[in-house]
Amino acid sequence: MVELKILKKSNECKARLGRLFTDHGEIDTPVFMPVGTNGTVKGLWQNQLESLQASIILGNAFHLYLRPGLDVLREFGGLHRFMSWQHSILTDSGGFQVFSLSDKKILEEGVKFRSPLDGSKIFMTPELSMEIQRAIGSDIAMAFDECVEPDASREYVEGSVGRTTRWARRCIEAHRGSGQALFGIVQGGFFEDLRERSAAEITSMDFNGFALGGLSVGEEFSVTTRILAHSVDLLPSDRARYLMGIGSPDIILAAVENGIDMFDCVLPTRMGRHGTALTWTGRVNLKAARNRFDRSPVDENCSCAVCSTYSRAYIHHLLSRDEMLGKILLSYHNISFLMNFVRELREAIAEERYMDFKTECLRNGLIGSNSLESFSSERMG
Amino acid sequence: MVELKILKKSNECKARLGRLFTDHGEIDTPVFMPVGTNGTVKGLWQNQLESLQASIILGNAFHLYLRPGLDVLREFGGLHRFMSWQHSILTDSGGFQVFSLSDKKILEEGVKFRSPLDGSKIFMTPELSMEIQRAIGSDIAMAFDECVEPDASREYVEGSVGRTTRWARRCIEAHRGSGQALFGIVQGGFFEDLRERSAAEITSMDFNGFALGGLSVGEEFSVTTRILAHSVDLLPSDRARYLMGIGSPDIILAAVENGIDMFDCVLPTRMGRHGTALTWTGRVNLKAARNRFDRSPVDENCSCAVCSTYSRAYIHHLLSRDEMLGKILLSYHNISFLMNFVRELREAIAEERYMDFKTECLRNGLIGSNSLESFSSERMG
Repeated sequence: MVELKILKKSNECKARLGRLFTDHGEIDTPVFMPVGTNGTVKGLWQNQLESLQASIILGNAFHLYLRPGLDVLREFGGLHRFMSWQHSILTDSGGFQVFSLSDKKILEEGVKFRSPLDGSKIFMTPELSMEIQRAIGSDIAMAFDECVEPDASREYVEGSVGRTTRWARRCIEAHRGSGQALFGIVQGGFFEDLRERSAAEITSMDFNGFALGGLSVGEEFSVTTRILAHSVDLLPSDRARYLMGIGSPDIILAAVENGIDMFDCVLPTRMGRHGTALTWTGRVNLKAARNRFDRSPVDENCSCAVCSTYSRAYIHHLLSRDEMLGKILLSYHNISFLMNFVRELREAIAEERYMDFKTECLRNGLIGSNSLESFSSERMG
Repeated sequence: MVELKILKKSNECKARLGRLFTDHGEIDTPVFMPVGTNGTVKGLWQNQLESLQASIILGNAFHLYLRPGLDVLREFGGLHRFMSWQHSILTDSGGFQVFSLSDKKILEEGVKFRSPLDGSKIFMTPELSMEIQRAIGSDIAMAFDECVEPDASREYVEGSVGRTTRWARRCIEAHRGSGQALFGIVQGGFFEDLRERSAAEITSMDFNGFALGGLSVGEEFSVTTRILAHSVDLLPSDRARYLMGIGSPDIILAAVENGIDMFDCVLPTRMGRHGTALTWTGRVNLKAARNRFDRSPVDENCSCAVCSTYSRAYIHHLLSRDEMLGKILLSYHNISFLMNFVRELREAIAEERYMDFKTECLRNGLIGSNSLESFSSERMG
């Protein structure tokens, strides 16, 4: 089971330090969780993730249900053994992925759609999602929720909040005896009062932690921060608080300031595959020709295995030849960057200088000029 | 400079043990050299190659001339520093790659063709090949030769052998003062007498080692072994002997038995990317559905980082989802397999049991059912 111990609350803001205890280890919070949708954090060996001190990674119920499938996962006794990962795993319920499909039918019972792999019919229900996550054997399972479109009407979101609550009850029922932790998900779009209603209903149930869903789905930064600042306080302070699908350093800063403990995102690996590096002074496009002769590391302020060995020019060359190693090195650096970023952020909270840390990060240009682009479609994996 | 010290000659066959000394270390021979065409052994970090005890890798003059280009290589003082590789590098002259292009014009002066990257006109000459390899700063440079088609007429091959000899003289001239070793390449197609003429002409020049070119270009196994058995004896025994483009364990066994010291091939990484593993009992197609539930390692007789951690089922899953890690793990295992294979082969020579070793390898099925397929198009990288 999963338990959160709060170690410290900031005097400056709502940020907090904690430790999550799972059957697979201890996790210092705030924590960034690298995403391994298909049971692999794209491009990295499991021992490389370990060397970066990743204490928990994400798997995805929807994708793992399609492949390798429940029969294989059960044969191996779960995802930990299947992918040879000794540390903690959290699984997304599949809600977000199912709702990203264009051709689906939402019923009270669940969601009907066709497999994007082979076109076969699938009927995803709260019960099936719990069954999948039980077979995966994740340390933390997520409730099956409905994630609405950013432009959904108030009327639609209202109906959806009710459905997500009823599904949450069915998840709790179906989940009994699994030995896993289960987190509830608060929805409600960008309507404060619907967020309040969803939070009241979801937090009234016996979940081990709570997530904010439906953010970072294409909306503007100011909307994300508005909902964030309003919604975190609606979650009980003695349980873990998880902001789903967030990996951009500037939103992480805002989330932690508001009291969020956990976040995940495909951003570091996806950006890495596309030739972009996260650095302390902003995003760097290593595909750009200006890197051809550049002997400096990806980030002067980083001492990861990539930055201490390889130059920008070499990585630029690899990317220009579409060599796997270019994507690999940038994915590794980007994960390393976020792990270090969150480690330094925890130290700043511990030393009561979080607001200074945040200001300095932003002053150094950490946001980067492309910041807003990060808000769309980062979560599909 | 490069020097070969012969440590032992087998009493059973023409196999020999040696040590090559370069400015970047010592190399035990027979040696398998992983291919890093574009300055990267596809999918592996340089420190992973080190952990597999790769003491020398290949670069390719033709590809590195196109990208990153001589200006970048000179800025970095050569490929070693550009790619952060501390050990030895041998460069292919570009001969084989140029001759693989369909649209080219072969003149006495050199070969005219268009860049496969941007269509620009290139005129590759022995002098340009030497200039490129000097900028790369490889420990061992190769002469610029003409590699003929496997179905070339006797008349054509005869003319080509003369051209390769004249080009070899120009290479030696252009190469003076570079501080690199230079190996000559014996051609002559599948005609024994032309091989003899080429060997006589090439070995009369002051090269630091000699290679057999024009093999493994699509011909049958029996032709390869016939030319091999005939040609190795034409090379001086006090210099390194290099069979170009060979990586299939069965041909390695035949090559070493005939007195070859060095070989290279893209086979381990190319097969890895396509889902095939090299094992002591033959090739294994991990894409096949029979691996879905298979908890065993890729090779029961291998203790590499892949085989000691991951199952066939997991790698099958990664390949079926086209995840980078599947290609990465198999590329690593395949390189590891060949490094171990050659290490055991050296031990067998040292202990005068090479012929038994060879027999046992073949009896265990090491050749695999696809052996012959390996003879075509393995060299382009």
